[in-house]
Amino acid sequence: MTIDDLKALIAQAEFHKFLKMDVLDLEADGKLSIKLPFDESYTIFRKAGAYHGGIIASLVDVAGAMACSVVKGYPTPTANLRIDYLKSPARCDLYADAEARRVGRGIGVADVTIRDENGTVYALGRGTFNTADPRPVG
Amino acid sequence: MTIDDLKALIAQAEFHKFLKMDVLDLEADGKLSIKLPFDESYTIFRKAGAYHGGIIASLVDVAGAMACSVVKGYPTPTANLRIDYLKSPARCDLYADAEARRVGRGIGVADVTIRDENGTVYALGRGTFNTADPRPVG
Amino acid sequence: MTIDDLKALIAQAEFHKFLKMDVLDLEADGKLSIKLPFDESYTIFRKAGAYHGGIIASLVDVAGAMACSVVKGYPTPTANLRIDYLKSPARCDLYADAEARRVGRGIGVADVTIRDENGTVYALGRGTFNTADPRPVG
Amino acid sequence: MTIDDLKALIAQAEFHKFLKMDVLDLEADGKLSIKLPFDESYTIFRKAGAYHGGIIASLVDVAGAMACSVVKGYPTPTANLRIDYLKSPARCDLYADAEARRVGRGIGVADVTIRDENGTVYALGRGTFNTADPRPVG
Repeated sequence: MTIDDLKALIAQAEFHKFLKMDVLDLEADGKLSIKLPFDESYTIFRKAGAYHGGIIASLVDVAGAMACSVVKGYPTPTANLRIDYLKSPARCDLYADAEARRVGRGIGVADVTIRDENGTVYALGRGTFNTADPRPVG
Repeated sequence: MTIDDLKALIAQAEFHKFLKMDVLDLEADGKLSIKLPFDESYTIFRKAGAYHGGIIASLVDVAGAMACSVVKGYPTPTANLRIDYLKSPARCDLYADAEARRVGRGIGVADVTIRDENGTVYALGRGTFNTADPRPVG
Repeated sequence: MTIDDLKALIAQAEFHKFLKMDVLDLEADGKLSIKLPFDESYTIFRKAGAYHGGIIASLVDVAGAMACSVVKGYPTPTANLRIDYLKSPARCDLYADAEARRVGRGIGVADVTIRDENGTVYALGRGTFNTADPRPVG
Repeated sequence: MTIDDLKALIAQAEFHKFLKMDVLDLEADGKLSIKLPFDESYTIFRKAGAYHGGIIASLVDVAGAMACSVVKGYPTPTANLRIDYLKSPARCDLYADAEARRVGRGIGVADVTIRDENGTVYALGRGTFNTADPRPVG
């Protein structure tokens, strides 16, 4: 499975027709960035343009899973996800910078920082991913 | 702020036109259930009908925040969110059962269980919510 | 590995000469209770008799790992641990009630409730444990 | 409350007679390092010299709370704690590098990295701390 395969996998998910992410960088060591352009449909308060917490959690989910997947070369399902919301982004594009911190035989851990283009950090994400090879042995 | 006010608050969020939740029960002590009817647009793999992790995280976010809000009588923004994915639900409606475990002056904690109508549990959520009164003192 | 083997494993850890836990119930399906009798050396403020957060975290760690271990029949190392402190226990014995919520081939999830003998809940714990069989294949 | 006051607060806890930490750096902006010299009594398996998970959790707790406390100038109790164990340290001194990521009026978030003197990372910690001023208003 190549990086293009992974991008294709992301692209085919139904939910990603709504969550219109753009994978900017994707390195074989598990570092990547994803851009999410602002859209009114992502907001909880339309007037303020504040992002819904679920949208930010979704970004963390995708970026973290992708960081582990690219190291392994196959999909690594999310086992758990944790998001700390530091401040509320308003009406701006978001960027998710992900980094695999450890990718073991059964479990991987990835960190995700949610920021805007100026580097202001809005949320911190961390997750555990199931990195066991899904393909049959032998 | 009444329970109907809270439901109206949920209803007006742009993202909730996509995440079509139905608040089934909502008690003043911070217990509630939300139903999310299955929709293809929530899936990560359309064929299997498997829910995207971000959709489940969004359900946990809304249900947990609502559990603390109803106790306080005003919106309680999410400080952090944690979701453990136990098994993947496929092509079924989901229910989020939320319960406020502690609602203090500054911090609240709520538990959310994600299940189907038969009681099979797919995910466990827990979150911390900012319960400080947003209204000016005096 | 029997339940007695597990208890022996707990007993031989150096740190457990300090953290003097008593395993009360231990069932094959991953439910158990541990009692920690109060000791001045567990406190952060001696006068108030308030437990140090690290002591409570340690209890969650042991109880959660044991819940998954007893299902598997071998030690299941902690992958991550999360503790929510709801209120501060003072100068009382603590009980950790643990329950395995899911024990898969590679990952297990356990819940731990920290309470006193009257049922007052002081902390909520949840953890992920590495449930892969450590013994060589074949 | 000065930085020396904080160190004195740490020093007086009963549990810290067992957990013999040394505060190396402590800056007013919430960055600090703590050294924990290896001791047999911290191990889970004496032979391997592997640290008990509870000891590492305790280090994260103290370092994270201290990072928020030093910014605020008063004690900031732990609301929740999360530790990801990446690899098992054996028979070496540990260092906890803590950093306050956000310190608000009611809630603070701090990150803690657990490493040895060579920079090998063994665990990642993150916590939420209650930063409300405990002193009476007016």
